[in-house]
Amino acid sequence: MIYIGIDVGGLSFKAGAVDEAGHILSKASCPSGVERGYGPMIRDMAELAFRVAKESGHSMDEVKSIGIGIPGIIDPGTGRVPFCNNLFWTDVPILDEMKKYTDIPVYVDNDATVAGLAESVAGVSAGVKNSVFVTLGTGIGGGVILNGRVFTGSHGVATEIGHVTTVDGGEPCNCGKRGCWERYASATALIREGRRLCERKPECALMKAVEGNTDAITAKHVFDLAKAGDPDCLELFDWYIHHLCMGLGNLVSLYDPEVFVLGGGVSHAGEFLLDAVRKELPNWVFFKSMPFARVELAKLTNDAGIIGAAMLGR
Amino acid sequence: MIYIGIDVGGLSFKAGAVDEAGHILSKASCPSGVERGYGPMIRDMAELAFRVAKESGHSMDEVKSIGIGIPGIIDPGTGRVPFCNNLFWTDVPILDEMKKYTDIPVYVDNDATVAGLAESVAGVSAGVKNSVFVTLGTGIGGGVILNGRVFTGSHGVATEIGHVTTVDGGEPCNCGKRGCWERYASATALIREGRRLCERKPECALMKAVEGNTDAITAKHVFDLAKAGDPDCLELFDWYIHHLCMGLGNLVSLYDPEVFVLGGGVSHAGEFLLDAVRKELPNWVFFKSMPFARVELAKLTNDAGIIGAAMLGR
Repeated sequence: MIYIGIDVGGLSFKAGAVDEAGHILSKASCPSGVERGYGPMIRDMAELAFRVAKESGHSMDEVKSIGIGIPGIIDPGTGRVPFCNNLFWTDVPILDEMKKYTDIPVYVDNDATVAGLAESVAGVSAGVKNSVFVTLGTGIGGGVILNGRVFTGSHGVATEIGHVTTVDGGEPCNCGKRGCWERYASATALIREGRRLCERKPECALMKAVEGNTDAITAKHVFDLAKAGDPDCLELFDWYIHHLCMGLGNLVSLYDPEVFVLGGGVSHAGEFLLDAVRKELPNWVFFKSMPFARVELAKLTNDAGIIGAAMLGR
Repeated sequence: MIYIGIDVGGLSFKAGAVDEAGHILSKASCPSGVERGYGPMIRDMAELAFRVAKESGHSMDEVKSIGIGIPGIIDPGTGRVPFCNNLFWTDVPILDEMKKYTDIPVYVDNDATVAGLAESVAGVSAGVKNSVFVTLGTGIGGGVILNGRVFTGSHGVATEIGHVTTVDGGEPCNCGKRGCWERYASATALIREGRRLCERKPECALMKAVEGNTDAITAKHVFDLAKAGDPDCLELFDWYIHHLCMGLGNLVSLYDPEVFVLGGGVSHAGEFLLDAVRKELPNWVFFKSMPFARVELAKLTNDAGIIGAAMLGR
């Protein structure tokens, strides 16, 4: 038996046939075509599933389930996607639509959740009962695995780890609240603070690195300059690590996982980031003498979405 | 078959024989005698268990398990209590000690966890899969029930909901961090702010209520004056509700439970508190259009510790 996983993004759908151990047997992709509305998009997902099954040398009878990872949430009560900004979806009956094309069981979950599941099956947190996958990108997403299973709470919203308030009355967030963790520990936060640095100090190394174009600042610029010892970017890096570890400490207090897996664009800073987090995190843990989660970098990167979506049905 | 539950406090041990449905059949208590060290204390716990079983009309053969709720945590890896301030315990091998007196399985967990379990078996969250019990007292404790079972994480520390950082760089906490939620939403926080109010405004109604003795301020004074319409205490109450709901909103983002159960001293403010929380909480929820946890007051109060401890073995 095999499992199909579909990684749904705003630009493309990527699908794969995956075996029991989380290995990809065949892959295919197609453009999302979000302008067409959800009907044709979901039909394409089904067709992509049929295609990767065939290309892996299996008939649809040998497919145990189809899993779909979306950049949004699904209401477990209704099987509908209440909204998904990147796909321009509002209240989409994704399970009912898929039923038009196949009788195979279909599972849908959030993309960060799915990536966390992939790491816990075939990645850096394989074999671990409790782990939290933290994607540090435009925002912060979470994939929470408790007792070896995906945890999304009673209404499917328990993955919104980026919207934990850590700074009362802090930076406004597009969720309508203020001081959400992702306003301080995402790539976007680091870029915002980089721009503020350049405004405050136009002669700084960061400004030189982007040749005066602050719109070009990326998290990588800040990390690279900090690595090279630039004092301004080192200060910014320390600020970032402070906020990142404050939020991870909160997750220790609530989930107490065995492993944190750091993924997303920011995690490309690699060992430099990892060393700093491992050094700072103990300051944010309540029981100083008790063991707590180790911190690792994600391993599966690009394929995590396909593998994790496939594993939803395992 | 019956279950024994023991509620361990710094002043007394309370034990009960409890049936499958969470009803107490017999009760007994004895002083804690913390000055004697853990050996005699744990012997007394075993004797109290034997006594309540007998008084309920059951032999020890009919006792399925003994559960113990402590004001601390147990390391699930070692079966030892690393520390427990109220009992003056450090690294106590509670399971090994209990084995000296009985072969019946013994389970130990945190008192807030145990109270949450009691509510989920025989109280206001009965029949609910995911619930979070929040004790608002000297600090803030949590009893987290996920998929119908006690959740304490990989190292037994996942109940420290009071030590989630909500105010970066805020009030110092005795855990060594700053800005922990319990510095803002416990009874202690309300009392501290009441004292600050009296310093700032010595002619205020709160100062009059305690006849100038600010050491006598309790959470009840603030709630009673707010209920009566005193503008200073209403402002303080709003401040308190802001922080309480910020933290509950964080728990929605991470646990997404069906029910929050409010317990502890502050919950005696009753409907006045409940109405305010129900009105404010929606502002702290990420997905405004999705259903989220309802908020209820604890029901079992004094017996929750016995019932919940007993239910650990169910």
